[in-house]
Amino acid sequence: MGSRVLVIGGDAGGMSAAAELRRRLPESDEVVVLERTERTSYSACGIPYWVAGEVDSADDLVSRSPAEHRERGIDLRTGTEATAIDVDAGEVTICRAIPAGVPGHGPPDDTEETMGYDRLVIATGAEPVRPDLPGIDGEGIFGIQTLADGQEVIDALAQKVERVVVVGSGYVGLEMAEACTLRGFDTTVVEQRETPLSILEPALGEKIASAMRGMDITLRTGTSVTGFALDDGHVTGVEIADETLPADVVILGLGVVARTEIAQKAGLPTGAKGGIIVDSTQRVTGFDGIWAAGDCVVTRDRITDELIHVPLGTHANKQGIVVADAVAAEMLGEEPRLEFPGIVQTAITKFCNLEISRTGLGEQQARDAGFDPVVASIDTTTIAGYLPDAGDLTVLMIADRPTRRLLGTQIVGNRNAGLRIDVAATAITAGMTVDDVVMLDLAYAPPFASVWSPLLVAARATVKLLN
Amino acid sequence: MGSRVLVIGGDAGGMSAAAELRRRLPESDEVVVLERTERTSYSACGIPYWVAGEVDSADDLVSRSPAEHRERGIDLRTGTEATAIDVDAGEVTICRAIPAGVPGHGPPDDTEETMGYDRLVIATGAEPVRPDLPGIDGEGIFGIQTLADGQEVIDALAQKVERVVVVGSGYVGLEMAEACTLRGFDTTVVEQRETPLSILEPALGEKIASAMRGMDITLRTGTSVTGFALDDGHVTGVEIADETLPADVVILGLGVVARTEIAQKAGLPTGAKGGIIVDSTQRVTGFDGIWAAGDCVVTRDRITDELIHVPLGTHANKQGIVVADAVAAEMLGEEPRLEFPGIVQTAITKFCNLEISRTGLGEQQARDAGFDPVVASIDTTTIAGYLPDAGDLTVLMIADRPTRRLLGTQIVGNRNAGLRIDVAATAITAGMTVDDVVMLDLAYAPPFASVWSPLLVAARATVKLLN
Repeated sequence: MGSRVLVIGGDAGGMSAAAELRRRLPESDEVVVLERTERTSYSACGIPYWVAGEVDSADDLVSRSPAEHRERGIDLRTGTEATAIDVDAGEVTICRAIPAGVPGHGPPDDTEETMGYDRLVIATGAEPVRPDLPGIDGEGIFGIQTLADGQEVIDALAQKVERVVVVGSGYVGLEMAEACTLRGFDTTVVEQRETPLSILEPALGEKIASAMRGMDITLRTGTSVTGFALDDGHVTGVEIADETLPADVVILGLGVVARTEIAQKAGLPTGAKGGIIVDSTQRVTGFDGIWAAGDCVVTRDRITDELIHVPLGTHANKQGIVVADAVAAEMLGEEPRLEFPGIVQTAITKFCNLEISRTGLGEQQARDAGFDPVVASIDTTTIAGYLPDAGDLTVLMIADRPTRRLLGTQIVGNRNAGLRIDVAATAITAGMTVDDVVMLDLAYAPPFASVWSPLLVAARATVKLLN
Repeated sequence: MGSRVLVIGGDAGGMSAAAELRRRLPESDEVVVLERTERTSYSACGIPYWVAGEVDSADDLVSRSPAEHRERGIDLRTGTEATAIDVDAGEVTICRAIPAGVPGHGPPDDTEETMGYDRLVIATGAEPVRPDLPGIDGEGIFGIQTLADGQEVIDALAQKVERVVVVGSGYVGLEMAEACTLRGFDTTVVEQRETPLSILEPALGEKIASAMRGMDITLRTGTSVTGFALDDGHVTGVEIADETLPADVVILGLGVVARTEIAQKAGLPTGAKGGIIVDSTQRVTGFDGIWAAGDCVVTRDRITDELIHVPLGTHANKQGIVVADAVAAEMLGEEPRLEFPGIVQTAITKFCNLEISRTGLGEQQARDAGFDPVVASIDTTTIAGYLPDAGDLTVLMIADRPTRRLLGTQIVGNRNAGLRIDVAATAITAGMTVDDVVMLDLAYAPPFASVWSPLLVAARATVKLLN
């Protein structure tokens, strides 16, 4: 008789692992996936584009449906939530009592049952931060994480809505603010810090603030939300300092935390934002037979070795195949081939006509990690300046003074700006100095770059500061 | 009294060196530049966009004019050609007899004079290959290298022109063919090989061929030009096999060779395509006091160590600052800070709606260099497939079987495809394996990439072939 791999969670991390395991393992081994919603393998990052109307339906955001996974031999149980893990017994408690807001699902039955496993993969994802403020449970206040969340927001915006307040100005906050403005709503963003998008240095954040104003998005920075005004249980305003911002719909863009309550209750180790601590094969540290992947884990920063929580589908997918490789290798008596080497905090987003990206460490992060950072910032054009499509871009580069090593890069600019961050991410991963970067053989032709490509210009400016 | 640095050539390599030298050296030292045309620091790569009408005038392609250079203290002699170098005497023969086709210049005087130098920088550039075929000297047959060449083509196209034949389908050939088609001319491209753009693998070349057909450019592959039909000295056709293709204007896109006749006559060492051989500080090998930069030199390939001729403004600019650093260091008694580490053959172009790029080695190049190449090719979307702007792209990846090292990458695709090559160029420079590439933390957000970024997809496919 074969053994059973039980995967909790059917989005990026879980389904990547399950799909790869199904390919690697013999048919006699079971691959069971428990997914609390009715959807699998979807792009939560696509929700703002769905809300904006650029994407027609939630189905478009699904890269592989439950039916497709089942066809491939995965025993996928949707509408099924794992409520407890018994590590000693090798058993998970499951419940088909679906939480509110999962569409297309019949009436819940409250049956709790247990399911044994030989190997367990935890991929429970993350959930939006809901600060414990007066009124937070009012109707019309939404976090954005699952497609069900997206559907709820879309349904809410289809009611009589004039004013939307977005709390927080991270990626999701900005993307949702833009989507709401595009849909014609009067939109306000409230941010605790002085500039939006705190993963950027303030000087670049200013550019985002200015783009927001250009789009008639009201931006309230340096101000904290103290509560929500409700009328008959429905939100009517967001309270800040001594003022109430009227709101028919509130979107929470305060980031997410790992969804690891059951892991914590089972005694598994967790770190930043509740992320489960794993080794380089994604095995839960100190526990045999249990792996974890995706938004529910912490990940090593490749520069600082710090364990951080960076919930992104791209990491989840890679971690999923690392888990599958480790689990399959153990079951098949082979050597694992893959390790997840960690991340360099690369991120990108588009806001209005700006492409925004970053990688590595910010100035303060670098200082906190014991580096002696120098910061250079340059303005140049996205492509050869004499071509009609040329736009502007700013590149900020951070290097370590004694070692001259590239530590971080941030970019804000027009079309053709953002993806250049991938070069910096690769250079940081390789441990290059800014001198190395100056001499990189990057692509040059007028429709793509000036003869000194923007990253080379930034590296030269950084070198100048170092010399 | 100070010493004199004499620079021959006032485009990218020469003027980068001169400008940087002027900044570094005391005023008592002279920086003299001889430039045979009346223009400096121009973008030859921009000529096709000028011909297409996307750029209004040649002036737009000039990043710094003679007047601007002179204001900065450079003794710039335009309309002045160096005709000989006497290495032993430390002397250059100069002549103000301007070759035909240099606009804006008074009648030539034939005075030859000599000018002594303490240190010499050769930056004579490259010139289009003009094959020794019957009729090659006919009017209406143009190579594209200087702004004067561009002006001649524009003037010729302003006459009664219906049919343009482009000989060769390299970057310049393709870009000029597109420009001519956009201007409404009946355009034919003749290529000796079976697919256009020979720096791509044939499978990708096929995609270019298909784009050309879609643009109503006639493509004749596998055929060589045997001569040119002339009428009253003016070209009327291009002869191939037993056929004459009617042509009012012919554009030569057969590549360039280094313009190093005077260097060769002076006994300086040259290699591929006549490029001057230099060391890593761009000093001419075996000669003290002489440096060279730009399209007139050969350059080390960072993978194979082979010396190759890759004339590109981006290399010329870097080599120019390396020369300046070496010369200034020697004059000021300092240690040089810079070395030119070589290139990885990165190149990019845009043709019709396709972005085309490559870096590293092609399959045959890899084999010739003693590697055991595996080649994977994948098709994916430029950005998240569910967004309305998503286009197609193909990534071809080449790795060395025993070491798993990334050797080369080629990309053909729609908008947002081409610049991804820079990641591969950086990874190759760092000596990464394809396994390393799979785990790179590249930017992910729906408007920029699928959750598996195209290069990661290609790297996974390559790994699969290796395992």
